[in-house]
Amino acid sequence: MIPTRTLKELAEYLGGRVIGDENVSVNGLAPLESAGSDKITFLANPKYAAKVAETGAAAVLMAPGAESHGRNVIEVANPYLGFAKLLTLFYTTPHPPLGVLPEANVGTEVTLGEDITLYPGACIGNNVTIGDRSVIHSGAVIYEGSVIGDDCLIHANAVVRERCRVGNRCIIQPGAVIGSDGFGYAPDGRAYYRIPQIGIVVLEDDVEIGANCTIDRAALEVTLIKRGTKLDNLVQIAHNCHIGEDCMIVSQVGISGSVKIGNHVTLAGQVGVAGHLTIGDNVIVGAQGGVPSSLPADAVYSGSPTMPHKEWLRAMAVVPRLPELKKNISSLEKRIAELEAAIIRK
Amino acid sequence: MIPTRTLKELAEYLGGRVIGDENVSVNGLAPLESAGSDKITFLANPKYAAKVAETGAAAVLMAPGAESHGRNVIEVANPYLGFAKLLTLFYTTPHPPLGVLPEANVGTEVTLGEDITLYPGACIGNNVTIGDRSVIHSGAVIYEGSVIGDDCLIHANAVVRERCRVGNRCIIQPGAVIGSDGFGYAPDGRAYYRIPQIGIVVLEDDVEIGANCTIDRAALEVTLIKRGTKLDNLVQIAHNCHIGEDCMIVSQVGISGSVKIGNHVTLAGQVGVAGHLTIGDNVIVGAQGGVPSSLPADAVYSGSPTMPHKEWLRAMAVVPRLPELKKNISSLEKRIAELEAAIIRK
Amino acid sequence: MIPTRTLKELAEYLGGRVIGDENVSVNGLAPLESAGSDKITFLANPKYAAKVAETGAAAVLMAPGAESHGRNVIEVANPYLGFAKLLTLFYTTPHPPLGVLPEANVGTEVTLGEDITLYPGACIGNNVTIGDRSVIHSGAVIYEGSVIGDDCLIHANAVVRERCRVGNRCIIQPGAVIGSDGFGYAPDGRAYYRIPQIGIVVLEDDVEIGANCTIDRAALEVTLIKRGTKLDNLVQIAHNCHIGEDCMIVSQVGISGSVKIGNHVTLAGQVGVAGHLTIGDNVIVGAQGGVPSSLPADAVYSGSPTMPHKEWLRAMAVVPRLPELKKNISSLEKRIAELEAAIIRK
Repeated sequence: MIPTRTLKELAEYLGGRVIGDENVSVNGLAPLESAGSDKITFLANPKYAAKVAETGAAAVLMAPGAESHGRNVIEVANPYLGFAKLLTLFYTTPHPPLGVLPEANVGTEVTLGEDITLYPGACIGNNVTIGDRSVIHSGAVIYEGSVIGDDCLIHANAVVRERCRVGNRCIIQPGAVIGSDGFGYAPDGRAYYRIPQIGIVVLEDDVEIGANCTIDRAALEVTLIKRGTKLDNLVQIAHNCHIGEDCMIVSQVGISGSVKIGNHVTLAGQVGVAGHLTIGDNVIVGAQGGVPSSLPADAVYSGSPTMPHKEWLRAMAVVPRLPELKKNISSLEKRIAELEAAIIRK
Repeated sequence: MIPTRTLKELAEYLGGRVIGDENVSVNGLAPLESAGSDKITFLANPKYAAKVAETGAAAVLMAPGAESHGRNVIEVANPYLGFAKLLTLFYTTPHPPLGVLPEANVGTEVTLGEDITLYPGACIGNNVTIGDRSVIHSGAVIYEGSVIGDDCLIHANAVVRERCRVGNRCIIQPGAVIGSDGFGYAPDGRAYYRIPQIGIVVLEDDVEIGANCTIDRAALEVTLIKRGTKLDNLVQIAHNCHIGEDCMIVSQVGISGSVKIGNHVTLAGQVGVAGHLTIGDNVIVGAQGGVPSSLPADAVYSGSPTMPHKEWLRAMAVVPRLPELKKNISSLEKRIAELEAAIIRK
Repeated sequence: MIPTRTLKELAEYLGGRVIGDENVSVNGLAPLESAGSDKITFLANPKYAAKVAETGAAAVLMAPGAESHGRNVIEVANPYLGFAKLLTLFYTTPHPPLGVLPEANVGTEVTLGEDITLYPGACIGNNVTIGDRSVIHSGAVIYEGSVIGDDCLIHANAVVRERCRVGNRCIIQPGAVIGSDGFGYAPDGRAYYRIPQIGIVVLEDDVEIGANCTIDRAALEVTLIKRGTKLDNLVQIAHNCHIGEDCMIVSQVGISGSVKIGNHVTLAGQVGVAGHLTIGDNVIVGAQGGVPSSLPADAVYSGSPTMPHKEWLRAMAVVPRLPELKKNISSLEKRIAELEAAIIRK
């Protein structure tokens, strides 16, 4: 059952202001083309501004200065953010607290917060703490001594190994593994001797981890993912890494051991980062980039090995023409030899 | 216990015809070199045709026109397909229906088909439908409201999240995740605001999903994988993708959001596809290819960024010789400068 | 509670010798800079030799010939290995045998060794054998007929499918899948017919498998990983591969079907290997390498497609300068044309 809201209520929720009739009611959000008269729509991309004139929506969420074509408008600084917030308002509901459902396994000395949900088949080890309102889905396993914060959502078959710490409002998608052993071995002749991985993983508040990601525990201290950073699916974070705040790590990225990444960094899909490097704040690395050495802040890189993005674009434009260039060089060589012969003959 | 079959029975099963004694019986399949007189063998690759003369097998599966060397033969148009079908006939058995085993967790309002099997530790949420003869292994978790078709095989610790739909005869290998949240955030200053992912995933009939794959639910509508498409292990399909029929998506491929892929497309291992692209029917992308823009149908591409495969082969042949080319250019430069000087002197 | 040990005891444990006071006791290990007087420290990298003079540690683990600065010393041939062994001694404890905990699911005809632990939610199929002292964590699923050796550690939500064999002292991190179906299909018109994968996976002794790895069962025979080989997280091993002894396969590597890899091979992160190749002993392939053809032993390769590592370094140094080279060639072309014209004019 989707609630009905007046434009006045929505403007307050979004921190915007109504232009037009603030008592109009809507019960949901829809695109400019398909919205009916009981819906609000949004103009996030100025390229679609002309569609505002024709939309059937009851109101339009738009940025200050956009042309309203006489529509009821909620003006907000960032309409795309407003769209996301209205999606949340209209189409999501908080998980109702169901308590410890039968067939959930709870160890000894466990501290359970208020209004939690443990689904059947969730396994909570000894000495674990689960914060208020957190939800642990079926088959998720929290090993001994770990701490899960408030308002967390741990999806099915995710694993948090021993002594790790998950902050508040973290979301862990199904199958993700937090705290697996780091990949550390000491050569012993031709064989390898396992180096115990006695550190932990710490996820700060508002961190989100994609499905089937793997985040290794530190050898001695802490693998750290700071506040607000989001990982897409199948990302690998090796032991001892420190990832800054508000980073976006896209699917299938692999980060080797002991890498330090600044704040607000974006690593696009399938990027690889070699061990022990530092990546500065606000860096963007393009898809499939391979980072072999530390990257200064505030720049965009691409390629494997990485180089400045624009340089890479220019270099890649030449690659398909390499056979032609090679032929040109041979041809020039021949012409020069002829010229040399001609000069000598004279 | 492997059943014994006459050549007549096998020819009927395969839609082929017997040349020789149709009453000969065999109890299995073996390679040309090692088959004994109670086995049938097969000639799928013409390069091994001479081995037919020496095989100890009771009969040979071969294409029309191949030399039989006087052997009993079952002629079929596609002997490799015939080999696969005989493997199925001789060496696989349908899963016996075991019902709901103790320790399987079944929610409320669940619809269970006939002759199903739910293993211990399988978790079936409320309002789920499981089709006839489907098998759900231990630790697999089906969230609320999802539908699993007939004759499906959902392996251990696979996860199907809420409201997703799995067709008939689908196979989901262990640990695969269907319906995790798409990776969508709206920038809110330097932080990111989560965009609710309220869509679903639909797998049509005969889709097979490899171990530890991740297929994200759509933001608003449907992430769709059409009939007959097969995914190898550790493949990532982002939100809103539509993958056509009869595609082969090899291990560790990553497909970004909102990509549309045609029918009968092959993406080789570790390929990456950027967001919002279209890939035409029958396209093949070679291993580790990086697709930065849409690809027309009926062609083969390689490289990162991708180019036509043959062009890529020629370009890659030059790469190891780049230092030599660079030196050649310097040398030509010097020789030209000398020529220029000589001309001027004259 | 960390035990206290004398230098004499530690030297015996490590096979080294004490120089100085062998009755000094320590209760742990710490870095040169931060070790207190109750700790032993270590000098593994000669670059830090000067720090030995200033360390507060009670003793230093070092190689023969290093300068002791008058400290108590334990001399060992390989101090880094010694460090790893002391970490194990001081900071790890064997898992106490807990038996079959309530809520573990055990099938029929199961053989359980002595001093095992089966955690709640572990699922053991019929006819499975679990060796002495092995530990199976919550949510791990061992299918029918598999064999797990002695002293194994199978972490949460790992899966071992039917009839596979795991050697002694193997460690399988959370979410890894052993024995999923190989990716084999026979074309049947435009559709694909599934080839039954009736083989198995064998992991020999001391093999370690990272989190969320996937190792496919063979089509007919055995996918084999030999003694001592270690896999990092999210590695894909396709059907029929044979991986040698003491290999290091780093995160997100993908190995295609029927590849044969020698002993002591290192594949760095995100490497891909095409099908049916052979890789010789002691080969190293650099990160993101793409191996398109077999690689001879005892060499280092990089690039996609791979080439000898040093050749690759030289070639990659030229790539960012390709636009400049292209321009140079055009300029040379122009100068040559002018020279040719000048010669003709004369």
